[in-house]
Amino acid sequence: MPARLIESLATTEEMAAVFSDDSLLQAMLDFESALARAEARVGVIPESAAAAITKAAVASNFDSAEIARQTLRAGTPGIPLVKALTERVRISDAASAGYVHWGTTSQDVADTAMILLLRSLRAIFWRPIKDVSMLHCAIWSDKHADTVMLGRTLLQPAPPITFGLKAAQWRAAICRGWKRVSQRLDTAMVLEFGGASGTLAALGTARSRCQSGSCCGTASERACRALACISRRPCGIDGGAWDLRRQPRKNGARYFVAHASRSSRGSPNPVARDVADLQRCRISGIPLLRRLRLRRRGVYLMRSRPSCRACCREHQRAAGGWQAEWAIIATVMQLAAVALASMREVAEGLVVYPQRMRQNIDATRGAIFAERAMMMIADRVGRDEAHQILEQASTRMIATGRTLDQVLQDMSSQWGGPPDLPAFDSPEGYLGSAEQFRKRLLNDPE
Amino acid sequence: MPARLIESLATTEEMAAVFSDDSLLQAMLDFESALARAEARVGVIPESAAAAITKAAVASNFDSAEIARQTLRAGTPGIPLVKALTERVRISDAASAGYVHWGTTSQDVADTAMILLLRSLRAIFWRPIKDVSMLHCAIWSDKHADTVMLGRTLLQPAPPITFGLKAAQWRAAICRGWKRVSQRLDTAMVLEFGGASGTLAALGTARSRCQSGSCCGTASERACRALACISRRPCGIDGGAWDLRRQPRKNGARYFVAHASRSSRGSPNPVARDVADLQRCRISGIPLLRRLRLRRRGVYLMRSRPSCRACCREHQRAAGGWQAEWAIIATVMQLAAVALASMREVAEGLVVYPQRMRQNIDATRGAIFAERAMMMIADRVGRDEAHQILEQASTRMIATGRTLDQVLQDMSSQWGGPPDLPAFDSPEGYLGSAEQFRKRLLNDPE
Amino acid sequence: MPARLIESLATTEEMAAVFSDDSLLQAMLDFESALARAEARVGVIPESAAAAITKAAVASNFDSAEIARQTLRAGTPGIPLVKALTERVRISDAASAGYVHWGTTSQDVADTAMILLLRSLRAIFWRPIKDVSMLHCAIWSDKHADTVMLGRTLLQPAPPITFGLKAAQWRAAICRGWKRVSQRLDTAMVLEFGGASGTLAALGTARSRCQSGSCCGTASERACRALACISRRPCGIDGGAWDLRRQPRKNGARYFVAHASRSSRGSPNPVARDVADLQRCRISGIPLLRRLRLRRRGVYLMRSRPSCRACCREHQRAAGGWQAEWAIIATVMQLAAVALASMREVAEGLVVYPQRMRQNIDATRGAIFAERAMMMIADRVGRDEAHQILEQASTRMIATGRTLDQVLQDMSSQWGGPPDLPAFDSPEGYLGSAEQFRKRLLNDPE
Amino acid sequence: MPARLIESLATTEEMAAVFSDDSLLQAMLDFESALARAEARVGVIPESAAAAITKAAVASNFDSAEIARQTLRAGTPGIPLVKALTERVRISDAASAGYVHWGTTSQDVADTAMILLLRSLRAIFWRPIKDVSMLHCAIWSDKHADTVMLGRTLLQPAPPITFGLKAAQWRAAICRGWKRVSQRLDTAMVLEFGGASGTLAALGTARSRCQSGSCCGTASERACRALACISRRPCGIDGGAWDLRRQPRKNGARYFVAHASRSSRGSPNPVARDVADLQRCRISGIPLLRRLRLRRRGVYLMRSRPSCRACCREHQRAAGGWQAEWAIIATVMQLAAVALASMREVAEGLVVYPQRMRQNIDATRGAIFAERAMMMIADRVGRDEAHQILEQASTRMIATGRTLDQVLQDMSSQWGGPPDLPAFDSPEGYLGSAEQFRKRLLNDPE
Repeated sequence: MPARLIESLATTEEMAAVFSDDSLLQAMLDFESALARAEARVGVIPESAAAAITKAAVASNFDSAEIARQTLRAGTPGIPLVKALTERVRISDAASAGYVHWGTTSQDVADTAMILLLRSLRAIFWRPIKDVSMLHCAIWSDKHADTVMLGRTLLQPAPPITFGLKAAQWRAAICRGWKRVSQRLDTAMVLEFGGASGTLAALGTARSRCQSGSCCGTASERACRALACISRRPCGIDGGAWDLRRQPRKNGARYFVAHASRSSRGSPNPVARDVADLQRCRISGIPLLRRLRLRRRGVYLMRSRPSCRACCREHQRAAGGWQAEWAIIATVMQLAAVALASMREVAEGLVVYPQRMRQNIDATRGAIFAERAMMMIADRVGRDEAHQILEQASTRMIATGRTLDQVLQDMSSQWGGPPDLPAFDSPEGYLGSAEQFRKRLLNDPE
Repeated sequence: MPARLIESLATTEEMAAVFSDDSLLQAMLDFESALARAEARVGVIPESAAAAITKAAVASNFDSAEIARQTLRAGTPGIPLVKALTERVRISDAASAGYVHWGTTSQDVADTAMILLLRSLRAIFWRPIKDVSMLHCAIWSDKHADTVMLGRTLLQPAPPITFGLKAAQWRAAICRGWKRVSQRLDTAMVLEFGGASGTLAALGTARSRCQSGSCCGTASERACRALACISRRPCGIDGGAWDLRRQPRKNGARYFVAHASRSSRGSPNPVARDVADLQRCRISGIPLLRRLRLRRRGVYLMRSRPSCRACCREHQRAAGGWQAEWAIIATVMQLAAVALASMREVAEGLVVYPQRMRQNIDATRGAIFAERAMMMIADRVGRDEAHQILEQASTRMIATGRTLDQVLQDMSSQWGGPPDLPAFDSPEGYLGSAEQFRKRLLNDPE
Repeated sequence: MPARLIESLATTEEMAAVFSDDSLLQAMLDFESALARAEARVGVIPESAAAAITKAAVASNFDSAEIARQTLRAGTPGIPLVKALTERVRISDAASAGYVHWGTTSQDVADTAMILLLRSLRAIFWRPIKDVSMLHCAIWSDKHADTVMLGRTLLQPAPPITFGLKAAQWRAAICRGWKRVSQRLDTAMVLEFGGASGTLAALGTARSRCQSGSCCGTASERACRALACISRRPCGIDGGAWDLRRQPRKNGARYFVAHASRSSRGSPNPVARDVADLQRCRISGIPLLRRLRLRRRGVYLMRSRPSCRACCREHQRAAGGWQAEWAIIATVMQLAAVALASMREVAEGLVVYPQRMRQNIDATRGAIFAERAMMMIADRVGRDEAHQILEQASTRMIATGRTLDQVLQDMSSQWGGPPDLPAFDSPEGYLGSAEQFRKRLLNDPE
Repeated sequence: MPARLIESLATTEEMAAVFSDDSLLQAMLDFESALARAEARVGVIPESAAAAITKAAVASNFDSAEIARQTLRAGTPGIPLVKALTERVRISDAASAGYVHWGTTSQDVADTAMILLLRSLRAIFWRPIKDVSMLHCAIWSDKHADTVMLGRTLLQPAPPITFGLKAAQWRAAICRGWKRVSQRLDTAMVLEFGGASGTLAALGTARSRCQSGSCCGTASERACRALACISRRPCGIDGGAWDLRRQPRKNGARYFVAHASRSSRGSPNPVARDVADLQRCRISGIPLLRRLRLRRRGVYLMRSRPSCRACCREHQRAAGGWQAEWAIIATVMQLAAVALASMREVAEGLVVYPQRMRQNIDATRGAIFAERAMMMIADRVGRDEAHQILEQASTRMIATGRTLDQVLQDMSSQWGGPPDLPAFDSPEGYLGSAEQFRKRLLNDPE
């Protein structure tokens, strides 16, 4: 399924297939046939009707372009879909045609179809997340546990950290993002089945007997159970009314979309930003190399920002909110998938230059250890005095181009010390708890 | 160009054609051929190269699906496009192949192509706006200049207005929205041509002589003018550098997109909301009628809310912002077009029921005239006293189900009046400046 | 603490107190004194310094207006706060002054102070949520289990539901919203303590012995534990580095703010919308009554929509994101609190008019039962035929003003039936599973 | 007017004064007194009442804290304000008390007061914009017309630009932003005066005679003109009805707020980002220097991102949108002012290091001139061949650490040239049209 040119940077082939006409059409047909079988099982419609509907409900039987055209005219895909399915059933079994879509409503089928598509995203999203967090970040973190690099505070150089810690932090960000996405996806997996007012009124209220002879609830309750079972949805399956179930579905699906996009972007985004920034420190980036270009492209795609505005709900069914949802959800989820795929590609191409990292530290001429020097000097002359000495030293560093260590030695009379301070400007000696934090993050990234 | 099912409620055939592979590909090719001719005209490349490039630059010569596939790999559509065009030129004229895309950069072609597509939206957006504002609203306004209806304040009944005034207000909202959209579109119409750093460095700096013999600026300046002329863009054509021209382009196009969507939704949205709300007052809406359904669908589509987040700019070219733009812009603009088309459809189907409007006023039993009654009574007993009398009257109205006029007559001893007040509860007598406001709005809707 | 006029509709006295100068200043001082005591406990600073700092760290000792002024100049509240606290400590114990703010950084204190304030919101938010969901909605739901009212689909009349079901749905929306808010609040409760680069470098790396003699981690680890213990924060207390802990903190706090505002608005918002809409059906709203006005005001406040944009993170500490956070968080959380307080007020004032609800159903003249009538007729003539009959019947209803039942009787020859259908237009007979759904929601609202 | 601690980074003293209780209260009182005088002039209320109201309408006569408290209870500031003013008038002239707030409504006074406050922002916003664009950027641009620096594309090094061009681009961005803000502010300056339903019904419809004897419109029209005149508002003064005038006011004010915040941030934001990024290239930033800190703080504040969500409009007056507006508008506008003030501060402290800029170019070892070298080589061997040669050269550069020039000399046999290319790696020789673009931008920044 080739993507269109306009969206060529905004989807992958795999994702384009998920939201293709065939895929979407089949999802809607799956709902209709599962419903028919469920209603047959509880005696609401004849078994023969369920069989005829199930047989007809195959996407290749239908002209999806024609259904798309009629959808705009009807204002919902449910109407042309049901009409086409009814005609199809009528051909093979005229008596069954009237049982298509029994007791349900257009939004039930449209919403459930979208949920079925979203369900397939879990695996697609998980793969790059797993590779980057489990594989690349974890390996980098261990390998570079002792590789020092500049910290950054307010974008400016700060006391050192290790690249091992940074990789662990990337991993944690990715894991946390995935945890949220995954939770939201569970919440979204709710069957939408309520009929016109969400009460399943068309299924009646009479309690009936099961095959086993014991009472097992109303027809609607049993239809919900059967439908849930047939469509093998893992959770939240009591079906239920619009207002009642649409709410969590909406919340679920909407939050999932918002989070899947935000969190799965949330994952690559800090990584992307860091990588883009760190690359700049190499300065001598050479734009002609293909591999680098690939890597960069990944970084840019990782940083793209789709967004999904929540729509407002009105009574049992909203006017104007959900009708635009399909296109927006598809756009947003495809962009999220691109971001994740790109994250993996960037991770695969990343090369670490420990020597360059140390050079960046050296280039600060000790300025990033000013706090440490101040605390050493404060032991002798008090903190206020020490603070002033360091302010002077900084000015001299700029004026002379010398290192902080050299400047402080020159000023040793002021702080009454021996000409040389204990080595305060070794990055390895000023890492604090970086290693503990790194290990803890690796063990418990969430 | 049939829309895909997933976006069937989110585009029109006309809009789908604008953003189709063919259309987008041709727009990029138009940029490349116009560039070649402009550079030939100022002597930067040979005339024969310009001719060969122009001849090759026809969308049907290319496999857009293949270019889309390579775009994801390359991170920009510019790279596969230029490669394919170069190959195509090489076939007919090997010597010219090297002059394809001379002195420009991928984002120049990608951005300018999008601007060319956006340019075609003016006519598409204008048609429904013109029909609704010029035709329907203006006619309703005159026809119903005297048709009274409930005002609404904080969603609750308020003193009356006329439907003529409401129609004039709808018209004004639409006209104002269009004015903004239209202004933004002008701002967006900027040629994007700066080369790698926005300085057009590859075109050189030497000032050269025109055919007329007089000095007419650098090659780059003349190329910009020629390019602008060739591509017949109406404004902002000095071309210019990235940072320089990308900025207004970005601002222009982004604001256009944001506003086109917001304002053109801004136009139908209050109308949609009012129509949806007013329909409810008919209460006996009959859901089976097709015409009504059509109208309603329009209302819902009118209320859909796409959004476009602005991307941030970094130095001469942003990393990660614009790469996702194409898909998002296309989604948003197509939704806007659907909203506008639906607005027209709703307008065409709207039926006004003056009698029903008056019944809604009568059903308030005079409560909406309480302020007026209070001012009449205040003339006799002062405003504080009058206020208390009306509070009591309101309580009695609720308790007894009688009209405000009847209740106040019963209480006439309290306000020392003759048993009957001057008729305070005629809607026609309490319209204030509604008619002046209506006329002024019709004359000067902006 | 009176609110300022500009925010008089956007806060409550209780919330204004939470974000007052005194409260915020004390929260920052609490961090500093807890830190000193924790560091003393693990031997990083002298016990006497901890005592002196704790004694000084009382908000009434400081001029908050002066600190606010200096904050704008310094770019962070941490700098003037620490300076003022240091001076204060110096007065009583000069030797201890140098130990103020030891090993930490400005953002540690600023962020932790905000978290301490957010912590106090749980109780404030919970009270109205509990009252409305537990008390009002639950009671209404049971009392009105049999009170029928119009369903609404796409804002138009639909088959009936019960007010008991609607109240249960409101309750569920509120409970779900609260659950999310509450979870987010837990996530946000993380101690922020990392020093300049998030490694706690200034605390050193030497493992030292506890009082008990056994090794118990580095000074920083023990300081974190002690600090957590002292400040009695319930979770997430391993302290940790910026990038590491700031991330979840940010996520936590930001998500909490976003969700607290969204979800706690999310709770009242559908309720508010429904109440506002339902009130309109009473039509004869009488604007002068104080109680009604109060109720309405609550509805409007419930619908206000503050929003909080997420800020982006850069390396160990962001430039430009968090600096504006305080004011925005305070604005957003106060608006959320107003929405919740208003929700309670609306709930307390709500009056249900069952008779009016039934009149609204009757006013549809049976149109909302068209689906049911069609299914009855379909049993005799098939669904296609039945559909056409109902379309004709709808047209006649509009033309004649008669009920659907009457019109269908007149048309009985067409559907070959006895002149009267079984009573299809009794709302009580067409409630489907409304009661089961209601009970299930009451038992398991989430 | 000291800011509160919670908003100390989010406002300035000047802005805090604009939104102070006194300022807001006086703005509301100004509306009431102007209204009274206007109505007196056209004979709607007695002249003596206008005099008494004007005399009483002084903020210092009122307890703003008490009015704020009652505002929350009433749901609008209009009700307690009018009540307090009425009481105040009654004291001096009982007969006039009843004429306070005649014919208007709460939202008229609340909205117009906010517009009066917004009006005063023009001067506050303009000052820093003028200083930075007119003064600093213009001077830098001329002074550094020849100062070369690295271009950046996709955040990576690119062919050179001049700092003079960059300063001109900053100036243009600021000028464009201000133009939009300023236009929006004009649009927002609309008098809000419509009464309960926006028809000014309470002012009557009778056409009356002016003092001059000629007919001059209805009382309401003349009151609008008089009110506009009295309050000296410069535009859009026909007053007019809610729906009618509230719409543009809303749009006006809302767009102004959105744009003032976005555009005035829009102005400093690219500048801030560039400055923050450029500072990083100095690497040896020394965090202890106060001046640098100040500058940085400015940068961070410039980048803060408040946002203002548009509220939806319903019929003549919205329920729940505008009630939260005051606090949000105040927050957003104050943040915008901080961003602008910070921009000026950053500009004042900015130091340019031309030598450092050149070193950054040199550090790329010619890689940024690869395109230029390729075009030179292409003249001899064709572009395809040249492209491959440059790819090889890039790989060798990385492997050997040599410059592009050296590497290409070694490879000269491949491109059949003399051992040395014409100097392709002089930044001054590859600036293209940078200087023309710079001059054009300085002359026509919009």
